[in-house]
Formats: sequence, structure tokens, C-alpha cells
Amino acid sequence: MILEHIQSPADVKSLEREQLPQLCQELRKFLVQHVSETGGHLASNLGAVELTVAIHRVFDTAVDRLVFDVGHQCYIHKALTGRQELFSTLRQFQGLSGFPKPHESEHDAFIAGHASNSVSVALGMARARTLQNEDYSVLALIGDGAMTGGLAYEGLNNAGASGEPLIVILNDNGMSIAPNVGAMPSHLSRLRSKPAYYHFKKWYRSLFGKHPMENGLYRFNHRVKTALKKTLWPGSTLFEDMGFTYLGPIDGHDLPRLCDVLQWAQELHGPVVVHVYTVKGKGYSFAEQNPGKFHGIAPFDPETGLLKKEAAESFSDQFGKAMISCATQDERVCAITAAMAEGTGLSEFAKEFPQRFFDVAIAEGHGVSMAAGLAAQGMIPVFAVYSTFLQRGYDQLIHDVALERLHVVLAVDRAGLVGADGETHHGCFDALYLSEIPGFTVLCPASFAELRTMLRRALFEIDGPVAVRYPRGGEEAFRKDCSAEPLVRLREGGDITLLGYGILINQLLEAAELLEAEGIHAEVLKLNQISPLSGDLLYTFFGERKPLLVLEDALGAGCVGQRVAAILTEGGLSPSRLILKNMEKHFAPEGSVAELNHRFGLDAAGVAAAVQEAIGHGQ
Amino acid sequence: MILEHIQSPADVKSLEREQLPQLCQELRKFLVQHVSETGGHLASNLGAVELTVAIHRVFDTAVDRLVFDVGHQCYIHKALTGRQELFSTLRQFQGLSGFPKPHESEHDAFIAGHASNSVSVALGMARARTLQNEDYSVLALIGDGAMTGGLAYEGLNNAGASGEPLIVILNDNGMSIAPNVGAMPSHLSRLRSKPAYYHFKKWYRSLFGKHPMENGLYRFNHRVKTALKKTLWPGSTLFEDMGFTYLGPIDGHDLPRLCDVLQWAQELHGPVVVHVYTVKGKGYSFAEQNPGKFHGIAPFDPETGLLKKEAAESFSDQFGKAMISCATQDERVCAITAAMAEGTGLSEFAKEFPQRFFDVAIAEGHGVSMAAGLAAQGMIPVFAVYSTFLQRGYDQLIHDVALERLHVVLAVDRAGLVGADGETHHGCFDALYLSEIPGFTVLCPASFAELRTMLRRALFEIDGPVAVRYPRGGEEAFRKDCSAEPLVRLREGGDITLLGYGILINQLLEAAELLEAEGIHAEVLKLNQISPLSGDLLYTFFGERKPLLVLEDALGAGCVGQRVAAILTEGGLSPSRLILKNMEKHFAPEGSVAELNHRFGLDAAGVAAAVQEAIGHGQ
Repeated sequence: MILEHIQSPADVKSLEREQLPQLCQELRKFLVQHVSETGGHLASNLGAVELTVAIHRVFDTAVDRLVFDVGHQCYIHKALTGRQELFSTLRQFQGLSGFPKPHESEHDAFIAGHASNSVSVALGMARARTLQNEDYSVLALIGDGAMTGGLAYEGLNNAGASGEPLIVILNDNGMSIAPNVGAMPSHLSRLRSKPAYYHFKKWYRSLFGKHPMENGLYRFNHRVKTALKKTLWPGSTLFEDMGFTYLGPIDGHDLPRLCDVLQWAQELHGPVVVHVYTVKGKGYSFAEQNPGKFHGIAPFDPETGLLKKEAAESFSDQFGKAMISCATQDERVCAITAAMAEGTGLSEFAKEFPQRFFDVAIAEGHGVSMAAGLAAQGMIPVFAVYSTFLQRGYDQLIHDVALERLHVVLAVDRAGLVGADGETHHGCFDALYLSEIPGFTVLCPASFAELRTMLRRALFEIDGPVAVRYPRGGEEAFRKDCSAEPLVRLREGGDITLLGYGILINQLLEAAELLEAEGIHAEVLKLNQISPLSGDLLYTFFGERKPLLVLEDALGAGCVGQRVAAILTEGGLSPSRLILKNMEKHFAPEGSVAELNHRFGLDAAGVAAAVQEAIGHGQ
Repeated sequence: MILEHIQSPADVKSLEREQLPQLCQELRKFLVQHVSETGGHLASNLGAVELTVAIHRVFDTAVDRLVFDVGHQCYIHKALTGRQELFSTLRQFQGLSGFPKPHESEHDAFIAGHASNSVSVALGMARARTLQNEDYSVLALIGDGAMTGGLAYEGLNNAGASGEPLIVILNDNGMSIAPNVGAMPSHLSRLRSKPAYYHFKKWYRSLFGKHPMENGLYRFNHRVKTALKKTLWPGSTLFEDMGFTYLGPIDGHDLPRLCDVLQWAQELHGPVVVHVYTVKGKGYSFAEQNPGKFHGIAPFDPETGLLKKEAAESFSDQFGKAMISCATQDERVCAITAAMAEGTGLSEFAKEFPQRFFDVAIAEGHGVSMAAGLAAQGMIPVFAVYSTFLQRGYDQLIHDVALERLHVVLAVDRAGLVGADGETHHGCFDALYLSEIPGFTVLCPASFAELRTMLRRALFEIDGPVAVRYPRGGEEAFRKDCSAEPLVRLREGGDITLLGYGILINQLLEAAELLEAEGIHAEVLKLNQISPLSGDLLYTFFGERKPLLVLEDALGAGCVGQRVAAILTEGGLSPSRLILKNMEKHFAPEGSVAELNHRFGLDAAGVAAAVQEAIGHGQ
């Protein structure tokens, strides 16, 4: 065993060249073993084994700055930088993060989680390095998927023009690519040749020109052929136009060549793109055959590749089904996703309504603006997007959607705490920012039934922009549909009002029972609509000043609780006691949602304890 | 006179070809006459005269959809679509908007104001058109400056791949271009030839490869020469790689040719880019010679080109001077702008510290992420950006800056109401969204002296991310520096507390005097720091429950007033009466800031009236 002796990248450097294939083999075994137990991102890490080893052979990541893009392909890097022992805690509360984290190691130059920012960040670092007369290397490691994000383009434009020494490694693992690209003859891989250009152009067209889900390959056959003919010409590449030296494409599993090319890239001392193509899932047959399934996966049996436990039905699944029903009923309904057809539950919709399904790739800003254009001409677009990624479309929501009160529907998936993906992925902002944009109606289902009802209302009954926000995963104890009114009383009680929205309503109902056992009678109110908040409606529920607790898994400043309290105060009904239970000013780490709720006091016990502390002693 | 008979685009279509040059001449005269009186965007409109006339000759904008990008080049369009009589009210309260506005005319397909969204919006419209089996044309009219925005790239990628009939008109007016490009020999303009490609590549390199302010042309001379050599090769263009048919470049002042090419583009029935180059300021010598000055200009003498009134010193000017002082003192200080060196007051800084000045072009997301990279490596980056455009970097502020508590400083210019640019440009969100991001300190100077002090504190004393937000224009009556504490009492009074931040503090001080005359004694508190808001600090100022009015030119949901009220309520000190004066849920239109303040009741009279209504009768 070599791997167990690798305590730091220095140990990687000191290996003989002929030991490296064994190291790579052991790393793959290590990955499969651990991820099969903890769950996590597997396929992209299997594809990046040789590339990561090569980086550590050539560079010193304690000094050189390696900036990951998205970052879920950092596992090998973590294993080689002294963190092997922590893999049993991967993505768990207080465990090893599944993403790079500077606080975890000096070898993690920057956080990652959202896509397409690595070149921009790396350029900033490179400029700092030059201004400070230092001479370390700066690398951005970006996948092909992230290249569709406008931020990557902004970064590349500026980086190429800057002349700053900076290495952009494009890890092209074929996930955005037509299947035949992986079969490219190996002789095409010599650098900067015409065949290399051919390969690049083909890749480029595949990447930017066609999303398989759009059926484009079939519809625009003619233009594809024309384009392929043109790609046989010599010429310069997009990256060269931008000011980069382009090296590639390189076989990303040819370790000696990778080391040579990275060495060369370093010596060029300017903006360089190293284009590496890798096989997602490499070396583990189940993952190679089904890289999508093994991209991010729950614990599985490494011998069979089967999940240990099938996933329960989720809000995303329910959303997908409800969309099919709505689209069947009304042909104005169409769906947009930003590279998350599977994750948002739209795969079936895409098959049933290919003409009305648009995968815009990782490009959330564009997704929002395109939805605005669809709505302006009378369609009913539904943009299904994770809460945390919708942040990329913030300005477009204000400028393109809300200013003209366009009827764009947002299906905001993964709203609130999401669990193992951690701080970069929690959806703890949307309850704030969506509510603040004039004209937005924001609905919060707490059960599958409510999701169905609210989506239908959003599509067919409400004017202007509407967001339906729902959590990651499945429904909990609350299985009813109480969504007929924006605010409903679920439980009577005269001592305190517990107010919440979404699935945290379960915690409030449970807390009320805990409090009842202590002789405290709590009223429970469920907000189905957190924006707009009607003062008149609130006043009918708060006929007198009484204690109020508001629970939410959102940041604290500007939260729903603060808004409700202020509105009540404006109406002369300010709570006699106000307790706001939320994330306050903290980014939540990784961990199960239950653990995180507990840690932040957002579970039933935490709510009950807060109430008892505030009013219990006075009973 | 032809123009006075043009009541609609149909009148343009019915003119004889030989009458068109006279129409163009009259339009230029019309523009200069009106903009010299009202102020507004001049140079880009002068450059777009023939292009706009050509569009109206070929298309019917009542049915075909013309989507402007940024939109300040829409004046000719407005003049040709029945709005000539309104030009005396241009950019004034309840007058003609300086930007396209669907509510103003059926000929305005979409709002505009922010850059780079037009292709995305147009693609949405084109898809709706196709799904509905309609056959109108959809056009996006985008300037070269907006092409650096990642959103434009996202839109182009998706539009080219879609195969949707869609015409992108690239109005290349040379503002992002090296001066010699305008002198391109006219024989190069024939379509799709090698010289055309040459021109495109040169343009492309100039546009994306070099920003004049970066001094790049001098530093990377060698690479430029190499690139120019390569551009002589034949080959395909970036747009063709993306799936567009590329037509151009066309002389944007050759009306017959423009009409022919637009007609051709329409008949191609697919994604087409029409590349038009125009001279900014065309036909008015002062504007041709100084297009920057005449881009957006205050009222001027048309005979001399001189401003009727020199602009008073602004917060932007003060910021620029303070930055030079700080950068002289500490060589870690550097400045970033997104194509707004002049507007943000950084022109002098750029000359004095060219190595530490970065113009990233219109690419706010990249500006934020690059700043994060600079900060991660020990520099002190200051990103100077208009409040409304910073919205484009919202996610990057959370993900790249705040998660690691990086010391990035934002100089948020044009915070609050901005006046004549109207609804797309007011900075009425930043007080909300910046305050909600964990770890951000948000400072609000009300005078030049406070701006200087706060900027220095932001750079050298405060940890983590900091925003200093200040208004458009100059300081008003408040000329002191009270910024030593986060909250200060400017006036004593026992009947009500008036709380505000930034320059609206002037309105509160004046309101207090008005109220005093009515026998109401108002205390005035000035918040220098709106985030984080310390409960302990607030409690020392609010020793007992009393009436509170909070004034701000921000949207209402999640505003500072709501946050303060909730914090006081949490501390058992909820205001006995709460009056929140803000924008509530309204986007403000164009108009002077004074007019808008008055309309929204945010001026001294409005504040005094609200107080009297609330507590005056009880006195």
C-alpha cells in the first residue's frame, strides 16, 4: 500500500514515477470504499485522479494557489493533503467537507460550491501575486459544465487580456458532451496541431451548441454538418482569441503527459488554458456506465452499485408530476432548468413535452431573463432552480421580471437547509430576497398536497411573478393541505403564538405538544404566503398584543419574523414578547438537516426551550 | 420638414427612399435640440439614427419585437413611434422615459436599463412565438459594451443553439474599441469575406482583449502583434461557432445597405447576428469629438457644446480623491470598476495607480469574484460600483466574499434614488441585500467628510466585507462628520424619535424643525452603520417605549426600519407607535430626487405630516 504513507503532497512528489499508477489505483479504491459508505460525489472524482496527482507532482498547493470550480471534484486533493483519516466523516456534521474549505487546510486556496467563479477568483489572486512581487503559480480547475456560466466567460475575457501568469485547467469530463467525443482517436491529442483544433472545435460545438435534452441534434442536423466541415480548417481557438496560450487536448488519464504539460504551462508564464479530457467515473465500471447516477450518490453497495436505500419520494418528484399535469391542461405552460433536469424532477416533463422544455445549462441569469421573454409573449414559464443557485439571477428577477410584473413562476427547490452539501448550498436567502422584490408572491408548501395546490395557483390564479419554495427531500409529518388561505391557525392556545412556514411547521406543532405538557398553551399559525404580507390579515389573527415566536431556516436580518413583528407594531399590536428563531448571522455547515436544525435551535426541543425560557418562568 | 409628419412607423415606411437622408438629418437636429434642453443620452442616439430608421423601414415594431439592450439609445425609436411631442418632458417626473417602457407604447417590447439581457429576453420571445405558431420577427439590439457581460454570452450560446429565428443586431459604436477601428477602410465592409473576418477579429480582440484603461496595449505589445497576424487568416467567427449566421460588418450610416441586410436577416429565418458599426455622436461635431462627455449629458448650449451649468462636486469625486490618498498610504489598496471609471470618480486614480486599477468592463459578477481573489491574497480591493448594477454580483457577494469573511470593500455609488434614469437605475435594494449577508458591515455617509472617514475605516479598521454606500450627486445641508459611532443623536426631543441614515438625515432635521413649530419635540438619530445592527446599542438609545419614525429611500419589505423595530421589540422596547417611511412596494419612476422624495413622502414635509397625523392630534 502506497496511499497509507501519503501524509502530504511532499510524499506524492517523492514517489518514483513507476509507483504512480499504483497510487492512482489505490486512490480509486479508497474513493469507492468511502463514498459507498458515506455517500457523496463519486464519478467526477474518479475521473480526476491522475489530474490531481499530476497537479501535486508539479505544484506545491501550500504555496501555489489551486482554485477549484464547483469543487465537488476535490476528494483526491483532500486525500493527498493529509485528510485521509477524515473521510469516514465526509459531508457530516463537524466532519470533512465535500467541498474545498480554506479553514480545513492550507492546501484549499478558496471555497467552492457554485459554478463558474474560479477563473475570476484566480485572476484576483494572480494579480495580487504580481503586485506583491511573489512568484507562486495560480491555477483554476474548471469543469466543462461550468464553462456555460457567463461568469466564466467574464473571467476568461479579463484573464486572457491581463497577461497575468495563470493556468486554467479545463477538466472536460464529457458530461456536457456528445458520447462520440470520448472515442476521439488518441493521435488527435498532440498539442496545438490541426487535429487538436478539430477536437476542440467539436467539443466546443457540443458543449455550447447543443444540449442533448433540447433535441437539437435532430432538429438542426444540417447546421451541425456544416459546422463539422468547418472545424477541419486550421485556425485559432476561442481561448487564443481571448489571449490564452492553449495546450490540448490532453488525455486526462495519461499521467506522465499531464505532468509534462502542467510543467510546460507553468513555464510559459502567461495566461494558459490546459484542456484535459477525462472519463467521468473512470475505473469503476458502474460509474463509468452511469456517470449521472454516480455524480452525487447516497450510500451504495460497491459490489453491485445499488443504493443501500432507495430515496423516498421528494418534493422535486412531486413538482415534476404536477408540472406534467399542468402542461397537459394548458399549452402555455413550459419549463426551464439550468442543467438540473434530474435534480429538479423535470426529466419526465422533458420527455413528454420536449418542445416546451428548455435546459439552458448552468446559466441561471439567462434562465430568468429568457423566462421573462416567454412571459412577455404570453407563455407561462416555470423556472425550476435550487434556491442557492437562483441567487445568480437576483438582478434579472428585479429588472427583467418584477419591473413589468411579468407572470414568471419560480419553482424554488432546496429552499432552506439542504444538509450534506453545506454552507455553499443551503437556501437560506431566498425567503428574504424574493420577498423584498415588489410584486412577488412567495408561497411555502409544507406537504406534497400543498405543493400541488400552490403550483396550480401560481400558474393559473395569481398575477405577476410568483415563487413556490419547497425544501430538499420528502415531506415530514405534516401531510395536509391547508393552503386555501395565506395564513391559517393550526392549533389554539392563549399563552404564545408560534408562527412558521414550510416544513418547519412540523417542529412548531411538536413544540406545542411539548409545551402543553409543561402547561403552556401555544397557538400555532402557518404562513402559506410569506410575501406580500398583509397587515390587515395579520391584525385579524393578532387581536391583542401577545407573545410571538417565529421560526424559520433563513438568515436573521430581514427575515419573515422581523417583517411580521414590524407590521404588527405598525398596527399597534406589537408582540408583548418577541422570539425570533432563525439562522441569525451564521452560514450553516454540512450535516443532516435534523442535526443542523438542532444545532441552531430550530427543532421542536429548541423552540420549546426558547419559549420556556422566555415565558415559562412567569406561568 | 419631414419629421413633423411622422406620426408612426407607417409614415417612415411610406417615405420615398430619397427622402430618408433628410429625415435622418432632421432627426439629428431634433435630438440635439431636445437633449440640449433636457439633458439625457445623446451620443449613442446620434450614432443610431440610420440604424433605427432602417429597422422601422423593414420591421413593424407594433408586432415584431425589438428588444433594446441598456436602452438609452432608444430616442430615435421613440421619436418615430408617435412620441415626438413628449421630448420636452424627457426623463422628467411623469414625462417621457429615457428608456424603453412597454407601458408607454406598444412599440416598446421590453424594458431596458441594465446591460446584456437583450438576447436572453429576445430568445424567450422567439420561443414563445414559435410555440404559438406566430411568425413575427424578434430583434435584440445590443451595443458592443454590453457584449462583455456574461449574461450576453449565456444568451448568445443558448440562442445560437436553439435554431430559433432571431436577429441580434450588434451596434458597435466604437466606445470599447481602439480608435483606429473607426478608420477601417470601407472596402472591408463587404459581407462574409476574409476582410470582413479580419475586421471582426480585430474588433473582437479590441473589445474583449484590451481595455484601454488597463494599459494592456503597451504591456502586451508582443501578443497583440501575434494576434493581429493570426487575424489575417480565414476562418469562422465566434458567432458562427455558436450557431449564428453572421452578417457584417456593415457601415451603420449606410441606410440602403442597412435596409437590405436587415431584410436579408429576416429572410434567413434562423439565429442571425448583424454586425453594424456606427460612429458615436455622428453628425454633431462636439459629440463626435468627445463621445464620452456626450454619452449622458446635462443641459448644454448646442452652439458651443458647453454645459449650461457645471456639475457640483459629487460624492463620486470625493470618493476618487479619498482613494488616491488611501492608495498612496498603503500599497495594498487597489480599485476595481466595471466600465464606470469616470462615473465612479476613479479616472484620476487610474492615471496615478495604473497597476492597481482594474476596469473589468461590464462584468459586475466577475468584479466581485476577482476582488475576492485579491483579498484572499492580502490586497485591499475596493470595487466601486453603482448600487443598481451591483445587483448582478449578489451571489458572488455571498459565495465568494462573505463565506470566507474576505476583506473586500464595496464603494456603492448611486445608492438610493438616483433621479432621471428612473426605475431601472434607482439603488433601492442595496440597503436590504447587503445588510442581510452575514458579516457585511454597511456604512452610510451623509456628507463628504463622512465618506472620507468611513472609507478609511472600511479599508484599514474593519475586518471582513464592508460596503460604503453613498448617493448620486453632491452633499446637501448636512456637512458634518458624526461618523465616530454607529448611531448618534443629532437632536433631542421627547415626543418622537426620527431615525434615518445617509443624506435623508437632512429631511429628518428639517422635519424636526417643522414639528417644533407645531409643538412636537422630535429626537433625531442618525444611523451611520445599518449592518450589523446591535441590539445593545439600540437599547441604550431607546430606554423606554416611544414613538419611532424611520425614513429611508429603500424598498419596504426587509428595510432598516423593520429590522430596528423588530430588534427593539425583541428587547422589550417596541416602539409605542411605529411609522415607516420608505418606498414600500413601489419601483420609483424617473424624476428629480427632490420630486421623488416628495411623491413618496420622504421629504421633510412628508415626514412632518406623517408624524402629525400619527401623534399630533393627541398632543
